[in-house]
Amino acid sequence: MTQSTHVLRSQQFSVSCINELFARAEAFQRGGRKNYRDKIVFTVFYEPSTRTRFSFETAAARLGAGMVSTENAKEFSSATKGESLEDTIRVLCGYRPDAIVLRHPQTGAAEIAAEVSEGSGVSIINAGDGAGQHPTQALLDLYTIIKEVGRSGLKVVIGGDLANGRTARSLAYLLAKVDPNVHLVFVAPSALRLGEDIKQHLFENGVRFEEKEELVETLQDADVIYWTRVQKERIANSDYENLRAEMLLRYSITLAHLKLMKPRAILMHPLPRAGEIHPSVDGDSRAAYFRQAANGVPLRMAILERIFTRIPFE
Amino acid sequence: MTQSTHVLRSQQFSVSCINELFARAEAFQRGGRKNYRDKIVFTVFYEPSTRTRFSFETAAARLGAGMVSTENAKEFSSATKGESLEDTIRVLCGYRPDAIVLRHPQTGAAEIAAEVSEGSGVSIINAGDGAGQHPTQALLDLYTIIKEVGRSGLKVVIGGDLANGRTARSLAYLLAKVDPNVHLVFVAPSALRLGEDIKQHLFENGVRFEEKEELVETLQDADVIYWTRVQKERIANSDYENLRAEMLLRYSITLAHLKLMKPRAILMHPLPRAGEIHPSVDGDSRAAYFRQAANGVPLRMAILERIFTRIPFE
Amino acid sequence: MTQSTHVLRSQQFSVSCINELFARAEAFQRGGRKNYRDKIVFTVFYEPSTRTRFSFETAAARLGAGMVSTENAKEFSSATKGESLEDTIRVLCGYRPDAIVLRHPQTGAAEIAAEVSEGSGVSIINAGDGAGQHPTQALLDLYTIIKEVGRSGLKVVIGGDLANGRTARSLAYLLAKVDPNVHLVFVAPSALRLGEDIKQHLFENGVRFEEKEELVETLQDADVIYWTRVQKERIANSDYENLRAEMLLRYSITLAHLKLMKPRAILMHPLPRAGEIHPSVDGDSRAAYFRQAANGVPLRMAILERIFTRIPFE
Repeated sequence: MTQSTHVLRSQQFSVSCINELFARAEAFQRGGRKNYRDKIVFTVFYEPSTRTRFSFETAAARLGAGMVSTENAKEFSSATKGESLEDTIRVLCGYRPDAIVLRHPQTGAAEIAAEVSEGSGVSIINAGDGAGQHPTQALLDLYTIIKEVGRSGLKVVIGGDLANGRTARSLAYLLAKVDPNVHLVFVAPSALRLGEDIKQHLFENGVRFEEKEELVETLQDADVIYWTRVQKERIANSDYENLRAEMLLRYSITLAHLKLMKPRAILMHPLPRAGEIHPSVDGDSRAAYFRQAANGVPLRMAILERIFTRIPFE
Repeated sequence: MTQSTHVLRSQQFSVSCINELFARAEAFQRGGRKNYRDKIVFTVFYEPSTRTRFSFETAAARLGAGMVSTENAKEFSSATKGESLEDTIRVLCGYRPDAIVLRHPQTGAAEIAAEVSEGSGVSIINAGDGAGQHPTQALLDLYTIIKEVGRSGLKVVIGGDLANGRTARSLAYLLAKVDPNVHLVFVAPSALRLGEDIKQHLFENGVRFEEKEELVETLQDADVIYWTRVQKERIANSDYENLRAEMLLRYSITLAHLKLMKPRAILMHPLPRAGEIHPSVDGDSRAAYFRQAANGVPLRMAILERIFTRIPFE
Repeated sequence: MTQSTHVLRSQQFSVSCINELFARAEAFQRGGRKNYRDKIVFTVFYEPSTRTRFSFETAAARLGAGMVSTENAKEFSSATKGESLEDTIRVLCGYRPDAIVLRHPQTGAAEIAAEVSEGSGVSIINAGDGAGQHPTQALLDLYTIIKEVGRSGLKVVIGGDLANGRTARSLAYLLAKVDPNVHLVFVAPSALRLGEDIKQHLFENGVRFEEKEELVETLQDADVIYWTRVQKERIANSDYENLRAEMLLRYSITLAHLKLMKPRAILMHPLPRAGEIHPSVDGDSRAAYFRQAANGVPLRMAILERIFTRIPFE
């Protein structure tokens, strides 16, 4: 792993860096706070993602850092004024924040921002770049799994929209890294199967995985069921309604499914959900998705703290 | 009154709780500040109400609390992603703020949020739920009246849109509670008269009230004239223009009306106004509406402080 | 100069006040910070200008001040609720912030706000009022020039949209004030020439200036080239495309132009740019526009500090 002051891709982290971040997140979750009063975080969201923005800003607030925020950053580059992402980031870096949390609809936007910030001392945190990466989401997913079911020889079922969902792909990658004995099971309709690139990667790294079309048969011995929604934003309109109808019919998780799960298994979802998991499931202690979302705050505190104390990610 | 950590309805407060809140508001108005640096307030507005949001956020800032804010919360539940209010609130409660200030267009939204927050330790403050409640507005109205003209045997004229205006209804309720000898006069055109439910309530509680259609005859011995605008948002479009035209013709308050008022009476309005009170009135010391708006900050400081120190409302 | 607690127009500042502000900005740029924890700044933007808002809010955050912000203030006066700017400002002043940073599309809006704020102790900072003024932009431009090339007998070329660009006009005024020997050269196509009013002003004050249509011939002995974009917002749609096409053809600055500039000259632009300066120029040390944008933060810290310590501008 090369050292970096930025958080750009799920793949950039070494196992030891992940362990350090999770240890700090754990400490923050037990109530730790800091007072980084001299630090400033910008949250620059070109598309709304209030959930993610609130998670980062709560983390920054708990660390005592100052914040400047826009949920409407596309105005920067509006037709009226026409500015490139590069110019915008260069201007913002000139204001000398400690970190810029960037959400942008285009894949690769965070990488561009990181290049532009070169030499300014400003860290870029990728908070989602289109179909690309969302590394803090991947880390909080992994953190949740390790915290709740451990990291040794897990069987993890990942299902839903595997073709378009960056979350599922990143998680598969990270799991393979921290648990050499992990057994991955991918469940999706044929139209939304995992891409060949990630399968090739898993194969090359000797990760045990299989693909299924049926959900039910995977539930009995799974430690984690990680479910996702169909990414309407990333699918042609004409296909979407059909796919979603098929997903809801075949893959909606209900109490009947939970009955088949192991008593200590967990059910995860990156949220928001739109029918993939029935609310009647929420009361079951294995429904972990709200705990998973909550874990985002301490995990992001750990990320920001590392940036504030100028320890590179590696 | 039952105890609650939430602020949901004007009716939830006992007289002693109101007195305590107003005493703290008074102290804050004389310059008190606090440094609740460890506290975090979320303001989550599904419809814009910049005036109310700024009032809450100024209160939080003066108390030294951290803040995370959205004026665009409907993106949470956008057509693209489709999330229920319950899910959104559950996720936000998982981030562990001390309070969520919620503005939502649907009546009952704050009650739902309070149910969902159960067990999380997060207080919900209703900052307006459609045609429903806006309890901190009602409290600041009452605070202004008591501060400026006392609380003993008042004659209070409440006029304008009494059918759709939650403000007028809540105020009638609270006044009856703190001043058993209050005399209420409701002034509205027949199409916008007070609903039977609130009249029934006043009748059952022995509150003296009457209804009038003419404004002028009520001015001479009133202690408070509380004026409101026609709630365009809550009236069918075809009716609105007619009603508004009638209101402006018959019920716009000008300097001529002020000449009829007692020297120590006050004229109130929740703002914004749209023609109901002529700006030429603003210079008269009896025009209390800007002082009324200003009272929102210390009153909301008192509310937030009570939440931060975990004293329930009762 | 008369004393004022507001920042409304580029012309309001005396040379000694400008010198004091720039000395403080310089100190802040070297790393000074303050902890004005009791101060509160409102940023109230009726049109988006994320660049300017972030600059002010970063300045406020570095000073430790509290902030309440809207990037969507037009909702205050929405068709639904219909509120005058006067009412909005009066309500906001009642919340007792120390300063309101106001961006508004109408010329004169900040002057109106300053009148309304009378007696409240709240300072209004004009952050752009349509085709009117943007005094902190003008000050940061001047600060950049003095910092980078001095203030004695400068030759300053100002070009682009001189008819609609408030920036160019304000800068011409301020330069004439601080450098009696300045030599101004205005470069614009005939349709976008400087207005007669500002030329009359320069003439009456004995400022040496000339007008040119060609850019190239001005480059050789200029100390500053200040370039601007065509203000689409302020030009009729039918004219805009033609003008812009002409501007890009005749006035886009490339490396070829930089070769003609003096080694210590600087190229400035208020940003955003939309083709007027080719990105290949950015790497040249004479390209000063990103440093110019960065100077906005310390300059605005100096402005806010002066307001927080209640020293009037004069």
